[in-house]
Amino acid sequence: MITDRLLNLDDFERAARTALDDARWAYLAGGAGRDDGVRHNEAALRRWKLRPRPLNGVADPDTGADVLGFPSTLPVLLAPTSPLRLFHPEAELPVSRAANRAGVLPIVSNDSHHSLTDIAEQGPFWFQLYCYGSRDDVTRTIRLAESLDARALVVTVDNSHPSRRLAMLRAGFATPPEVRFGIHRESGFSDGWVPPDTRLPRWPLTWEQLDFIQERTGLPVVVKGVLHPADAAELVARGVSAVIVSNHGGRQLDDTVAAIDTLPAIVAAAAGRIPVLMDGGIRSGADVIKALALGATAVCIGRPYVWGLAADGEDGVFRVIDVLRQELLDVARQLGVSSLRDVPTDLVVRTATEITVDEEWRCSA
Amino acid sequence: MITDRLLNLDDFERAARTALDDARWAYLAGGAGRDDGVRHNEAALRRWKLRPRPLNGVADPDTGADVLGFPSTLPVLLAPTSPLRLFHPEAELPVSRAANRAGVLPIVSNDSHHSLTDIAEQGPFWFQLYCYGSRDDVTRTIRLAESLDARALVVTVDNSHPSRRLAMLRAGFATPPEVRFGIHRESGFSDGWVPPDTRLPRWPLTWEQLDFIQERTGLPVVVKGVLHPADAAELVARGVSAVIVSNHGGRQLDDTVAAIDTLPAIVAAAAGRIPVLMDGGIRSGADVIKALALGATAVCIGRPYVWGLAADGEDGVFRVIDVLRQELLDVARQLGVSSLRDVPTDLVVRTATEITVDEEWRCSA
Amino acid sequence: MITDRLLNLDDFERAARTALDDARWAYLAGGAGRDDGVRHNEAALRRWKLRPRPLNGVADPDTGADVLGFPSTLPVLLAPTSPLRLFHPEAELPVSRAANRAGVLPIVSNDSHHSLTDIAEQGPFWFQLYCYGSRDDVTRTIRLAESLDARALVVTVDNSHPSRRLAMLRAGFATPPEVRFGIHRESGFSDGWVPPDTRLPRWPLTWEQLDFIQERTGLPVVVKGVLHPADAAELVARGVSAVIVSNHGGRQLDDTVAAIDTLPAIVAAAAGRIPVLMDGGIRSGADVIKALALGATAVCIGRPYVWGLAADGEDGVFRVIDVLRQELLDVARQLGVSSLRDVPTDLVVRTATEITVDEEWRCSA
Amino acid sequence: MITDRLLNLDDFERAARTALDDARWAYLAGGAGRDDGVRHNEAALRRWKLRPRPLNGVADPDTGADVLGFPSTLPVLLAPTSPLRLFHPEAELPVSRAANRAGVLPIVSNDSHHSLTDIAEQGPFWFQLYCYGSRDDVTRTIRLAESLDARALVVTVDNSHPSRRLAMLRAGFATPPEVRFGIHRESGFSDGWVPPDTRLPRWPLTWEQLDFIQERTGLPVVVKGVLHPADAAELVARGVSAVIVSNHGGRQLDDTVAAIDTLPAIVAAAAGRIPVLMDGGIRSGADVIKALALGATAVCIGRPYVWGLAADGEDGVFRVIDVLRQELLDVARQLGVSSLRDVPTDLVVRTATEITVDEEWRCSA
Ligand SMILES: Cc1cc2nc3c(=O)[nH]c(=O)nc-3n(C[C@H](O)[C@H](O)[C@H](O)COP(=O)(O)O)c2cc1C
Ligand SMILES: Cc1cc2nc3c(=O)[nH]c(=O)nc-3n(C[C@H](O)[C@H](O)[C@H](O)COP(=O)(O)O)c2cc1C
Ligand SMILES: Cc1cc2nc3c(=O)[nH]c(=O)nc-3n(C[C@H](O)[C@H](O)[C@H](O)COP(=O)(O)O)c2cc1C
Ligand SMILES: Cc1cc2nc3c(=O)[nH]c(=O)nc-3n(C[C@H](O)[C@H](O)[C@H](O)COP(=O)(O)O)c2cc1C
Repeated sequence: MITDRLLNLDDFERAARTALDDARWAYLAGGAGRDDGVRHNEAALRRWKLRPRPLNGVADPDTGADVLGFPSTLPVLLAPTSPLRLFHPEAELPVSRAANRAGVLPIVSNDSHHSLTDIAEQGPFWFQLYCYGSRDDVTRTIRLAESLDARALVVTVDNSHPSRRLAMLRAGFATPPEVRFGIHRESGFSDGWVPPDTRLPRWPLTWEQLDFIQERTGLPVVVKGVLHPADAAELVARGVSAVIVSNHGGRQLDDTVAAIDTLPAIVAAAAGRIPVLMDGGIRSGADVIKALALGATAVCIGRPYVWGLAADGEDGVFRVIDVLRQELLDVARQLGVSSLRDVPTDLVVRTATEITVDEEWRCSA
Repeated sequence: MITDRLLNLDDFERAARTALDDARWAYLAGGAGRDDGVRHNEAALRRWKLRPRPLNGVADPDTGADVLGFPSTLPVLLAPTSPLRLFHPEAELPVSRAANRAGVLPIVSNDSHHSLTDIAEQGPFWFQLYCYGSRDDVTRTIRLAESLDARALVVTVDNSHPSRRLAMLRAGFATPPEVRFGIHRESGFSDGWVPPDTRLPRWPLTWEQLDFIQERTGLPVVVKGVLHPADAAELVARGVSAVIVSNHGGRQLDDTVAAIDTLPAIVAAAAGRIPVLMDGGIRSGADVIKALALGATAVCIGRPYVWGLAADGEDGVFRVIDVLRQELLDVARQLGVSSLRDVPTDLVVRTATEITVDEEWRCSA
Repeated sequence: MITDRLLNLDDFERAARTALDDARWAYLAGGAGRDDGVRHNEAALRRWKLRPRPLNGVADPDTGADVLGFPSTLPVLLAPTSPLRLFHPEAELPVSRAANRAGVLPIVSNDSHHSLTDIAEQGPFWFQLYCYGSRDDVTRTIRLAESLDARALVVTVDNSHPSRRLAMLRAGFATPPEVRFGIHRESGFSDGWVPPDTRLPRWPLTWEQLDFIQERTGLPVVVKGVLHPADAAELVARGVSAVIVSNHGGRQLDDTVAAIDTLPAIVAAAAGRIPVLMDGGIRSGADVIKALALGATAVCIGRPYVWGLAADGEDGVFRVIDVLRQELLDVARQLGVSSLRDVPTDLVVRTATEITVDEEWRCSA
Repeated sequence: MITDRLLNLDDFERAARTALDDARWAYLAGGAGRDDGVRHNEAALRRWKLRPRPLNGVADPDTGADVLGFPSTLPVLLAPTSPLRLFHPEAELPVSRAANRAGVLPIVSNDSHHSLTDIAEQGPFWFQLYCYGSRDDVTRTIRLAESLDARALVVTVDNSHPSRRLAMLRAGFATPPEVRFGIHRESGFSDGWVPPDTRLPRWPLTWEQLDFIQERTGLPVVVKGVLHPADAAELVARGVSAVIVSNHGGRQLDDTVAAIDTLPAIVAAAAGRIPVLMDGGIRSGADVIKALALGATAVCIGRPYVWGLAADGEDGVFRVIDVLRQELLDVARQLGVSSLRDVPTDLVVRTATEITVDEEWRCSA
């Protein structure tokens, strides 16, 4: 398997860069504007440092997580990404298979290539809703997800409007013709074809639309794209089941606060009443643990598993998750954390010192 | 139109660099001393980050602004710059036309190439006064502006003395002979010709001179070049109509505080009694919104529209404003801001993390 | 002697880089993950600055230190490192000889190539215990150290589990066949041979195992690998003789806090009841004094003396210690510190300013 | 005059680099250890930013300063540097001539090439004492300075011990044979010749030696090399006339706090009872004003005037001072400071933002 020599997620990134043409790469790697936000998510995570307690003597840490009742083998979910047909001919199927094999949940995007029926067959999943068309259209999509036993409905609130993705535009990216929208077709919203360079209009996701969605479904509603603590407090009050702190991987607005840096304020606002998840910039097991220590119940990864998909299909996705698992086991042991369900906050501190890059030569062989 | 492929203001900067010879470029881009101040204005803006509230559900934000009674389509003005003949044969005319077309105010410099009559024909404007010659000379210039219906008199207080513009000197810049001073001629101050390498003496703009100007005119007086909160407080007490926080784009003193970083203290000193505007380093819609969130009523842009002018004349200037408009619409929607007249302060936070530039390869296609 | 032209420890580093093949270099220089932790230890030290008091008038500072009763000529020990056979055919012997010649203590790793008998002949030492095999195996190893008059038993608690050393893996490092484990053989634990790429399992070093070790020995027990103040407080309560603040030179976990930055909190937790030692990133006499001012009794150096060993055997190690001695004498004189046993805390301050590297050209001849 | 095209002190630095061989350059530019301290002095100054008050309306600022009674045309002195024969055949003479021409004080080093009689003929000066030989030797040197009307006795306390100047050693610097020590000969301490690579032993400058010097002389005693506020307080108590905050330009200890950053604490400790001077890293008029705003009475420059000397002899030194004068006039006008004798502290603020160097291309023509 080609991914055997890939030792950390940076390696998968490089492998994906090689596997993809410039336009697809720009679509995947880039974000809004000057891509500052993309880099800032990662840079902010590096500023948080760990303070191990090795004498706790943990040989066999429990990496499992309770993700709204789902017994995940890791506190990690696969963030919704689309269109995955860009990166693999089978699009979502190998992703869901790998997730199932690894015992983690994929969040299936409403904009998937395959029908939800086909994807749901691969294993348990959360469904991420984008609101297209009439209220009836949306209701039918929700029903479809319910009927296929989605474990939760993820409502992404930070992507109602198109954004200014300059890296993508500069690279001349256009959705290629082989990309289809299988769930659109299955829910009866459209024939599943969208002309290149077209973005289907979505509802701006307001408090009222959220109420409508909450009324229409018995599924747990998870709101993705929360950065402001006041929004978190209001969402708790309105009875959502969880929130995902996220700036959409820097793809919507170039200048937002890093997800990890706003996480503590959101956790405080949630006040323990609902789980808080987080995504954006997670590139290692240490990153995952930093988020857990700061109060997250679990994190999502976006680009990293797509690197795996582009590099080696289902095996690539599985290996990405597996690298994270190995790293998490390692970090938990070194830290003396016996269960990822309970990572003490005093294991992280924030530092003012930055690594200067000019010294990299020294450790490279 | 050549500017169609230019997606953000950085692109216009690159286009202008190509269009201009080294000496003109140095005059435009450079500042005082080592140019630290020029870069610092922009770097400081990047440190402020945004915290969106998307569920506010704003589809169609109002970008309009009340700029001392003028219904601007954007909270943006074109800062006074001179001599524009360096960058376009028609100098100020395409700038004022583009501003009028876009529904924003240009601030016309006293050192314009064309007569104020010719410029005023292009649309509404503010007039920026430099004090040359006798009190009568200045009074005649004020009368000229009043007679042509200037909406406000901008008194620039930070440019009374020549500054040490090293980049310009090193590039061997000298004012070329085709540059004229049309307003000087029209006001009767001079024949409108200034020998190369000559700087006409201006009055040091003191509190007393400001009193004199305020007595001479019924126009609203706007003071440009305020950085110290104590000056702002005194200006409020003396009844000026507005202040512009500015370090003259880093062109007067290399080591000043960044405009955005001193803005909050000035806003506090103004205590809501007069509007506070700001310029220096604004390069995107996000930058504009950061200034608004920190209390500015509007911002001015200097170099960016000159890039448009140098790259493509009136259309270039129009496109620069239009890019900002699109960015502002985008940012306002993503932030959940329904009107730029009211941007809550809690949408911005300051961060300690810096982007390391060595990672730029990753997002470039 | 080839090391005569080597003026500071950076020079020894470069000399060692030249002397070693890529794989050995990666093993020595690299750490866990992306090597951020390795660089961070050094970068953090550079942020602390000194505030001399030259008028104290110290011509001949006392550099001696009482290291748990051992009269060291310097507040410096040689950290345990293994396998030293990688860097010199005689492995530990020249290290212990040089330490003895210089009047400092080497900490002999349990994973040494030579028998402890052979090493102990070179001079006084501390013994660093890794726990392999049965309780009887460990007890026999402790007895061996006691019988050879080890002055203390160093229990390394941060290396119970293998870590993810990517630089080493990427360089294709494998333990070469000439490496043996002489103390394993001598204590009767094994025949002293470990197949390449094998890591012998060690006990996870828990509080209970520590109790077991403390019960088994009359030697002072020193715990190495403490980063969390709560652990330090607990270790004091359990009666250990000293702690070494250390993140194992960044080799176990890539994202830990820098040793120097967590030192003050550990010193506070120890509350003067036991000595606190520290290692990680010490590269100069000034670094040593910073640690002493922040409350350390002594520091250990790891990589620096291995650079000396690789460059020039016993003489190289001696010279590295001697450079530190000269630097310490120099820094103490400049600071006005008459004895390294008592370095006032107010001689160090922390700065926010970083050196920009692009200016290096100026001072290089 | 070749220095006409040199616009700021950076330009003089480049000119000197060209004029000097590698060894002399290393001696001049380098410092102790890794030269971090040299760069840190300058970097720290860049972090302080100015907040102008232009409406104060200052056309013709008074740049004069009262330097212990000497009516200096600028709040600038020439720091003692030696041996100047390295940089010009006439050594100190052109320096003292240029200082006199410019109306500022040179501080003449005890290690000068010429006799103090010859130097004193060029104009008023301060004498900087190093203590060599017996108490009688030192007393004779003090008498010599008094007889030649030195205005003050500068006692350098931070250079009693040789330091580890690695840049100099690496460049193979050795004092060339043409260097003589004219004041040593004149005072009768020696024949004025010192073998290359020899450093004459000096007294460690203790409180007691300082008492001795104070008793021996009626001249004002100025102590150079103060960084710790406790030392400043003690010096005030002992009745010295002034202190110079200095880390000897980074030449004695690589890791000291930057002079500008410790200045405020020293000023507080001096409590207005004696003037506080400062040197280290001053490279522009703005740097001078920052020091004045933070409480300094005057600053010294070291390397900058030596650049002038190396580039163009007396004219070069004069031009360096003149550039500073032009910059000071400019900065004072822009700031609205009417007299450098009184620079308000609220004109400076400290910033956390750093300039990223990669953007330099933009302003260079
Ligand atoms: C190529 C790509 C496509 C994405 N598509 C969606 C999507 O369809 N729905 C959604 O809610 N988020 C989408 N996202 C955002 C991710 O769910 C997630 O928030 C983000 O990727 C996390 O940051 P990371 O990539 O740094 O891990 C997408 C992200 C990427 C990179
Ligand atoms: C080429 C150029 C010419 C300028 N001329 C004037 C002027 O005539 N009057 C004035 O008040 N400000 C002048 N300024 C300053 C601008 O009004 C404004 O303060 C500054 O450009 C804002 O910074 P920015 O360029 O980063 O947007 C000039 C600026 C530039 C770049
Ligand atoms: C090559 C190498 C081998 C090491 N082996 C051991 C060991 O056997 N036992 C141990 O406790 N620490 C070991 N360490 C860690 C050191 O004792 C010490 O904590 C670390 O090197 C200090 O950081 P420094 O190298 O920056 O000085 C080793 C370190 C290195 C570099
Ligand atoms: C080449 C050179 C020689 C020096 N010689 C002396 C000296 O003889 N006596 C003294 O007190 N300081 C000496 N100094 C230190 C200076 O007086 C002053 O403190 C320092 O140069 C200030 O820093 P700057 O060079 O960044 O301006 C010397 C400095 C240099 C660069």
